[in-house]
Amino acid sequence: MTELLHINASRLHARIDALAAISPIFGAQGEPGNARLALTDEDRDGRDLVVTWMRDLGLHVEIDGVGNVVASTGPGASVMTGSHIDTVRTGGRFDGNLGVLAGLEVIERVAELGLILARPLAVAFFTNEEGARFQPDMLGSLVAVGGLGLEEALDTTAIDGARLGDELDRIGYAGGLPCPWAAPHAFVELHVEQGPVLESEGFTIGAVTGVQGISWQEVTIVGQSNHAGTTPMRLRHDPAYAAAAIAVEVRRLASTLPGQLGTVGKIDLTPNLINVVPASASLTVDLRNTDEAILQRAEHEFAAFVDALAEAEGVTISRRRLARFEPVEFDAEMIARVETTAAALGHSVMRLPSGAGHDAQMLARVCPTSMIFTNSVKGISHNPAEYTSPDDIAAGADVLLNVMVDLAR
Amino acid sequence: MTELLHINASRLHARIDALAAISPIFGAQGEPGNARLALTDEDRDGRDLVVTWMRDLGLHVEIDGVGNVVASTGPGASVMTGSHIDTVRTGGRFDGNLGVLAGLEVIERVAELGLILARPLAVAFFTNEEGARFQPDMLGSLVAVGGLGLEEALDTTAIDGARLGDELDRIGYAGGLPCPWAAPHAFVELHVEQGPVLESEGFTIGAVTGVQGISWQEVTIVGQSNHAGTTPMRLRHDPAYAAAAIAVEVRRLASTLPGQLGTVGKIDLTPNLINVVPASASLTVDLRNTDEAILQRAEHEFAAFVDALAEAEGVTISRRRLARFEPVEFDAEMIARVETTAAALGHSVMRLPSGAGHDAQMLARVCPTSMIFTNSVKGISHNPAEYTSPDDIAAGADVLLNVMVDLAR
Repeated sequence: MTELLHINASRLHARIDALAAISPIFGAQGEPGNARLALTDEDRDGRDLVVTWMRDLGLHVEIDGVGNVVASTGPGASVMTGSHIDTVRTGGRFDGNLGVLAGLEVIERVAELGLILARPLAVAFFTNEEGARFQPDMLGSLVAVGGLGLEEALDTTAIDGARLGDELDRIGYAGGLPCPWAAPHAFVELHVEQGPVLESEGFTIGAVTGVQGISWQEVTIVGQSNHAGTTPMRLRHDPAYAAAAIAVEVRRLASTLPGQLGTVGKIDLTPNLINVVPASASLTVDLRNTDEAILQRAEHEFAAFVDALAEAEGVTISRRRLARFEPVEFDAEMIARVETTAAALGHSVMRLPSGAGHDAQMLARVCPTSMIFTNSVKGISHNPAEYTSPDDIAAGADVLLNVMVDLAR
Repeated sequence: MTELLHINASRLHARIDALAAISPIFGAQGEPGNARLALTDEDRDGRDLVVTWMRDLGLHVEIDGVGNVVASTGPGASVMTGSHIDTVRTGGRFDGNLGVLAGLEVIERVAELGLILARPLAVAFFTNEEGARFQPDMLGSLVAVGGLGLEEALDTTAIDGARLGDELDRIGYAGGLPCPWAAPHAFVELHVEQGPVLESEGFTIGAVTGVQGISWQEVTIVGQSNHAGTTPMRLRHDPAYAAAAIAVEVRRLASTLPGQLGTVGKIDLTPNLINVVPASASLTVDLRNTDEAILQRAEHEFAAFVDALAEAEGVTISRRRLARFEPVEFDAEMIARVETTAAALGHSVMRLPSGAGHDAQMLARVCPTSMIFTNSVKGISHNPAEYTSPDDIAAGADVLLNVMVDLAR
């Protein structure tokens, strides 16, 4: 590290505000957020604005077959950053957008300072990171690194019934850059943490060590609907009790296995009436761990519990896998670079894994990769109440600037 | 008991079929059921049909201020039977209707046989027993015995917004018989069990000893909504986990306290998404026992569990009482009379409490009362698939006939 550089924070915030104004929504307390589902008209308007900024900076803009957009200062293997500009239906202003617009700011600042670098810089935004309209999430970055075929991706159907390829054509973002891309020299993504760890531990910057493995299951329980007042306990086959016992077991697993997270966020009973033992129940189970072996152990213990419960309660329980990603470990040198850069800038920094999925985990398949996290107040995410202070935004963008410049020198 | 009498089963079934034809619905397998919510046009049509039958038998028909209808063979304290003809939205053919139409059959059979009795016989049907349109359930019989004031009852608002008194006027069933009624000499109600006990124990007839006490609570849990992937377990305040722990505790209470039933039939999470720790949850708790002291103990243990759980999980849990009825004990002599009459008729008979509420529990406040249960196949109730065999219908109606005649001699 030679000299410490700083971004222009007010210019970055002006771009964040302008992009948020494309599809504004407001939270319960009037907090400004975004609703910009992938490949909708709103997403097109957001893309058009960001591409205009890319072109205004004189960058070389390319669009690939799945609608990913990458802008670079020149040819060859770049030091790349990027994230996404699609949001969930109740999105915040910073989730994804920060990583893209901070990348633009880095490139503009480098040009302004007249820095001469050995490698080109690049900033990308990837299609459908959120998975709120098309499954899977992180679809664009997965295609960019060759993890999913382009034709299969184009045939994906939205929750509203639209075909991804048709929507790309409709909004004019089906481009000619081939997939998979040529690998960048390195990739580093700036993102809000979307969790409470930095805040609760008192750190400004997170040097992200990797992304947790994710196991999503849907559990369906079929029992015997009965009158709650007339059916003796010994004659019951109660799906609501089974669902509850499963949710309690998920908590037990998460509390006993090292580094294990476990969440039951969705429970639906049928018919869901006060005086009726339900006929059926469904619930979702979200298990995550940075250690694949422990995650598998959690899955196995969970399956054994469910089987024994079905036998004991006299109900039928089926499990359906909704998603499964192995943990991703980021590059050790890249993690250290984020950590030392943040410290040199005078920011408190801790290493932590990412609990949520990010485009960076896909790029990690093809080049040295890490991420920079900034503080999310109260860990609130996917909500207009999502908030990161201007100081923390500037801190994260400064780390991104210095890491990218050092990698490109 | 002098001689054993039998009802005319085909005439009884013809009336059951005719009443069911007023507002037919059909179950998943085409089973014929009824949708006749209290004081709707369908209820009026059913009432008109039953009242026509009452008048055809030469009975003295009276209607009280809350729409209860009672038909008697003469003045004075009667041996009364009765039940209800309103149904839930997915009602069966026998629930309530059997008790009313078997009462009519008893009176017709007694006339046909030319029996001379010392006391008049009477058959009644009570308004809004189900509680599916107006709260509370058993409203009409509660008013008939003076447990609820007439004006208060008339001011009850339906789930569809209508005022009970207005609906009574609209369908022409606001009558002049004063409430509370003069007490009958005795009351006995025939009803399908709506539970699986008789079938599972292998008995035809139940001599009902009383009605369980009922405690209904709604539990609301407010925690902290968070991202399922980014929030460490130690920082969670998870309403879904708390709801599940409560449902497991309800099962534990019901499995350890004598004669205790406990059901969680309804759970609602908000926002109910796979990867979000919910912001809030609500669930219902249905506790029942024939022993008031044990029911109170269950309520106290439950409250203590909930308070400790709220503290441990860092969530706010509030409990709201939705309904509370103390257990009802029927008259010992009346219970014995049902039991010995069934046995004399050659039917297997067991004593059991009612798990569900019935109009008879209100009449028990003012005169010697019991009930006769017949077998419900698989205990299915509040469903078009509700079924009781013709043999069991006839057995139950025969017990009713002989009990009423013996009481009236």
